[in-house]
Amino acid sequence: MIKTAIVGATGYVGEELARILTRHPLAEISYITSHSYAGQDYAGIYRNFNRIIEQKCVEENIEELSDRVDVLFMALPHGIACKKIKPAILEKVKIIDLGADFRLKSREIYEQWYNTEHEAPELLREAVYGLCERKREEIKEARLVANPGCYTTCSIMTLLPAVKEGLIDTGTIFIDAKSGVTGAGRSLNPGVHFAECNESIKAYKIAAHRHTPEIEQELGVKITFVPHLIPMQRGILSACYAKLKDKTLTHEDINQVYLEYYGKEHFVRVMEKDVYPETRWVRGSNFCDIGMKIDGRTGNIILIGAIDNLVKGASGQAVQNMNIMFGLDERMGVDSVPTCL
Amino acid sequence: MIKTAIVGATGYVGEELARILTRHPLAEISYITSHSYAGQDYAGIYRNFNRIIEQKCVEENIEELSDRVDVLFMALPHGIACKKIKPAILEKVKIIDLGADFRLKSREIYEQWYNTEHEAPELLREAVYGLCERKREEIKEARLVANPGCYTTCSIMTLLPAVKEGLIDTGTIFIDAKSGVTGAGRSLNPGVHFAECNESIKAYKIAAHRHTPEIEQELGVKITFVPHLIPMQRGILSACYAKLKDKTLTHEDINQVYLEYYGKEHFVRVMEKDVYPETRWVRGSNFCDIGMKIDGRTGNIILIGAIDNLVKGASGQAVQNMNIMFGLDERMGVDSVPTCL
Amino acid sequence: MIKTAIVGATGYVGEELARILTRHPLAEISYITSHSYAGQDYAGIYRNFNRIIEQKCVEENIEELSDRVDVLFMALPHGIACKKIKPAILEKVKIIDLGADFRLKSREIYEQWYNTEHEAPELLREAVYGLCERKREEIKEARLVANPGCYTTCSIMTLLPAVKEGLIDTGTIFIDAKSGVTGAGRSLNPGVHFAECNESIKAYKIAAHRHTPEIEQELGVKITFVPHLIPMQRGILSACYAKLKDKTLTHEDINQVYLEYYGKEHFVRVMEKDVYPETRWVRGSNFCDIGMKIDGRTGNIILIGAIDNLVKGASGQAVQNMNIMFGLDERMGVDSVPTCL
Amino acid sequence: MIKTAIVGATGYVGEELARILTRHPLAEISYITSHSYAGQDYAGIYRNFNRIIEQKCVEENIEELSDRVDVLFMALPHGIACKKIKPAILEKVKIIDLGADFRLKSREIYEQWYNTEHEAPELLREAVYGLCERKREEIKEARLVANPGCYTTCSIMTLLPAVKEGLIDTGTIFIDAKSGVTGAGRSLNPGVHFAECNESIKAYKIAAHRHTPEIEQELGVKITFVPHLIPMQRGILSACYAKLKDKTLTHEDINQVYLEYYGKEHFVRVMEKDVYPETRWVRGSNFCDIGMKIDGRTGNIILIGAIDNLVKGASGQAVQNMNIMFGLDERMGVDSVPTCL
Repeated sequence: MIKTAIVGATGYVGEELARILTRHPLAEISYITSHSYAGQDYAGIYRNFNRIIEQKCVEENIEELSDRVDVLFMALPHGIACKKIKPAILEKVKIIDLGADFRLKSREIYEQWYNTEHEAPELLREAVYGLCERKREEIKEARLVANPGCYTTCSIMTLLPAVKEGLIDTGTIFIDAKSGVTGAGRSLNPGVHFAECNESIKAYKIAAHRHTPEIEQELGVKITFVPHLIPMQRGILSACYAKLKDKTLTHEDINQVYLEYYGKEHFVRVMEKDVYPETRWVRGSNFCDIGMKIDGRTGNIILIGAIDNLVKGASGQAVQNMNIMFGLDERMGVDSVPTCL
Repeated sequence: MIKTAIVGATGYVGEELARILTRHPLAEISYITSHSYAGQDYAGIYRNFNRIIEQKCVEENIEELSDRVDVLFMALPHGIACKKIKPAILEKVKIIDLGADFRLKSREIYEQWYNTEHEAPELLREAVYGLCERKREEIKEARLVANPGCYTTCSIMTLLPAVKEGLIDTGTIFIDAKSGVTGAGRSLNPGVHFAECNESIKAYKIAAHRHTPEIEQELGVKITFVPHLIPMQRGILSACYAKLKDKTLTHEDINQVYLEYYGKEHFVRVMEKDVYPETRWVRGSNFCDIGMKIDGRTGNIILIGAIDNLVKGASGQAVQNMNIMFGLDERMGVDSVPTCL
Repeated sequence: MIKTAIVGATGYVGEELARILTRHPLAEISYITSHSYAGQDYAGIYRNFNRIIEQKCVEENIEELSDRVDVLFMALPHGIACKKIKPAILEKVKIIDLGADFRLKSREIYEQWYNTEHEAPELLREAVYGLCERKREEIKEARLVANPGCYTTCSIMTLLPAVKEGLIDTGTIFIDAKSGVTGAGRSLNPGVHFAECNESIKAYKIAAHRHTPEIEQELGVKITFVPHLIPMQRGILSACYAKLKDKTLTHEDINQVYLEYYGKEHFVRVMEKDVYPETRWVRGSNFCDIGMKIDGRTGNIILIGAIDNLVKGASGQAVQNMNIMFGLDERMGVDSVPTCL
Repeated sequence: MIKTAIVGATGYVGEELARILTRHPLAEISYITSHSYAGQDYAGIYRNFNRIIEQKCVEENIEELSDRVDVLFMALPHGIACKKIKPAILEKVKIIDLGADFRLKSREIYEQWYNTEHEAPELLREAVYGLCERKREEIKEARLVANPGCYTTCSIMTLLPAVKEGLIDTGTIFIDAKSGVTGAGRSLNPGVHFAECNESIKAYKIAAHRHTPEIEQELGVKITFVPHLIPMQRGILSACYAKLKDKTLTHEDINQVYLEYYGKEHFVRVMEKDVYPETRWVRGSNFCDIGMKIDGRTGNIILIGAIDNLVKGASGQAVQNMNIMFGLDERMGVDSVPTCL
């Protein structure tokens, strides 16, 4: 059994990791850490785990944990993981960081968007950006995987073939993304008070969200990214807009390119013509659904992607990464059927 | 008192008209028509009107009604109003049509998008497009007002100053609109079953929604329009994307243009810098809130508008139109404070 | 114009008071107080008031306010109002307290349920329990009105005729009440985080909620009260269960009693047989809807009441109280039509 | 592998069965039947199954299916299964009926509550009521299992120990149950239109719901049962009220009785003192959580149970029944961790 520790287990990403790892046939949760809840029963915080997880939260100590487990999942606010992860630790344990600290290759861009100094710039080169379908070979060898953000996973997967194959005018890309409220995390603020986000929709951090440089890094182009908050638990839908370079391209042409990229990927489902993703079709699962439409009147293309922000957008992909790193079947433990109801 | 009739009163737009007109100080509801519910108490269908509206639904008969009331509100599916409205009727009664039949000036475009023959093309020229803030003077004289669609009201108001003043590259306009479920109307289909639209988001009728030509007619440019369904009762948020023509334009420049257009409009609120519309701030009201952001990195602009689809997007604007047509204060009866909770 | 001040205006009850008073034809909001937001624009906190309320929040000073306004609405956590309200103040200003401090006639019961000393027990006798339909005559003369709680308004109104007329076995009363999330107030805690109360239902404070003694005081009987949290913005539904004293009583008998109590009350709607309240039929309004069913198989009765917790359950009833205290038509400013959509 | 057929697979119960059986290690779905969708891809109806289930819906033919599969799951409206199931069929195949036809032992009571003739009364004696924790030994031998209703499973499990051990006054039992909207099934009607059940709560079929006689049959007492509709996808919470027979009973006494009944049951979690069930703690799982509170002031007890209506309340319990019937570990394929987010 692969011994795992979840560092920062009481956030939503941590909860979802615990849920997935509990049923993973070849992994076990050895430690659950939490600073705020140290000493408390994990199942007293998340009572869904009543009679399933009997462990207490412990204070996190990366040094000690790295001697005792095979892989550390780190689910911490940005700026903390890069303080704690040292080269010496990576010699003892594999790390999958679900935070933002190792996703950007450029220290400057990180410091500019996150407004803080990066404390381990020497590891940026080593860290592998853990978008499984794109970096599988590197992930196999990695000691440190930077698990992608939720908006980024959805946006990159949706746009990648079109950008890489030169189908769209890269000066005209707009991403309008919508996320359920779990994407905002567990911290309390008026914006996540039920009474103030239910029955409403808003855009926020317009052209200023920290997932922007991550998308740009992987796509290699500049984009305008606008996230929205939707009154639902989970799910991300990204509508990606651009002008086609060649207006004679047909749906079949574009679809063919997408099938070349994703046809053999278990977790990517390119949808048939005139069918578009809905977040309910991927809820609770590790799938990324992608649909597309050419607007012949304007020569524009609309690409739509959907994921579950807590699964493919965070914890599911993290376990997929673990599977790749440990030579297991990628689908192991993360192959649940979406719960559309 | 202005005598009114609501034709097709049992749909959501009709219900909202009844709600507003009930409290209008200078109008009264003389007739409520419904084919399916003729003979039934209106308050037995919408029990919010219990002890408020005591009328029964009657079979609609435009001829008769036109002799008995001062204004007809028609809230019918497309293709019906244009069969019923004749020049002779317009000599007797003012008509505010909340359906689609008289919004498009071009019979060809109507027939192409609605897939049906237009039965009263001779009235298309006379009908005034009832976007109050834009057509106020014509509405004053109108006999037949075509009340704009919900998505269109929001999208046109949000984009109009930018397009008309030549601030944006009109070849790059994308409108990503999100609507609450009342926007889909009262007809039953699996897409509005609670269990199949709650906790999910989807785009639909991508680049194929019938509000598209209406937006294009009023803005005078081609656009890509993509509507989404949001699990909430009411509200529309339109995010409008485009490239700025001149990248040196600042927020202050754009804001100034918007204030010139809307600064004196009671029902339009241009938001201060870095504050963006949320549908809850306009819920239940006739306001249209507009915010904007320049993405300096890409030279793009994001314009966001919000309305209540049933009020400014339908029945509220219809009553605002009635007020204008009858020489009343535009705000009369439609000046309720948004209910943010 | 009646000059009013809203003390503690940034909670949900305060917001709703502001919304109602803004459109009251004979009252005006002279002061809006808030400790946390003093100096800030009220419309910057609740942007629905953008261009409607231009006042800033001020620090609350009851002494000063009592010289400047005609009526103080106090919307504060329990234990504060009773510190601030002095007999000398009541000689200058009328007070409607929306908190809990003056609702219970017994200082002992207050101190036992609220776990704190009552700081103005000498005012308990003077304070009038402001359940308008029940205490109208006393309210007319009152200087200090204790506005009832939300659950209590709904539960008392639903049960009162049955209890007072001796129709039910008062040893068998169970109240199962359900409330929307605004009832929990604006304070942040995990229980109101969207992600932790959406898509779930729970009972809480079972047989321990502080509205219990208030219900018992007014009904004069002991009851078991169990509140539940429902994933919706607003609304309370109380299902009240009891054994009938006389199993030969029919629906018509009970209905007749209810009509005697409420038939002439504008804000109480006793529903016809086999029709039951739904919170949407009263949403945004000051109505209390009541329905009933006799279970002939068991000799039990089920009485169901519905109100909007923020209107009839708080701010609407407070304004209704103001109207009574100032000799106005009770309905003035609080007669909006429920918004069922 | 156990070969299964899902008869009536396009309802919500059928979808959930498909979801569970797809991941069952020792069962496979051999046939999916649907009258309305015969010939169509199942994954075209429920796109969550895209690339997971490749079968088409077929017309149901019980005779043929009984030759080809080991177990039939029947998810049909009442009155149909009892027409189709014949003794001869039961000699060839095991049947788990998720409808109502074989739950009631008394033909008279069935016909009275369902208003229709029972077409296979001779099978009522043989059919085993499939409440697994209660009838395990009989289920092992059964050919025909009547899977209990959702409200009934929750209510019976919550009340059973208290009733059977004579702890409560059985003349005073009230069950106030709340269900998510999937409980209403997939049929379209205005009551499940998002716009008409979202943001509202109502009681319905008060003291007249068809699950009532099922609860009474299993508990052996008369009860008043009142269901409510809650704006959420899934989950049932039953609050059960009664007077204690002996007011000196403590929480520990009652708890002890519940632990004797359920302490060794994998799928029943009796909660610790002062902790109560929330539907989110069981969502997506086969658990039934039970909490309790004694109201010392009144001598009443409140028992609260929670299940997922589609899992323990329908398809999960059906698979648990299959496991028991085929000698498998009861938990196989239905042991997923609740998804609280």
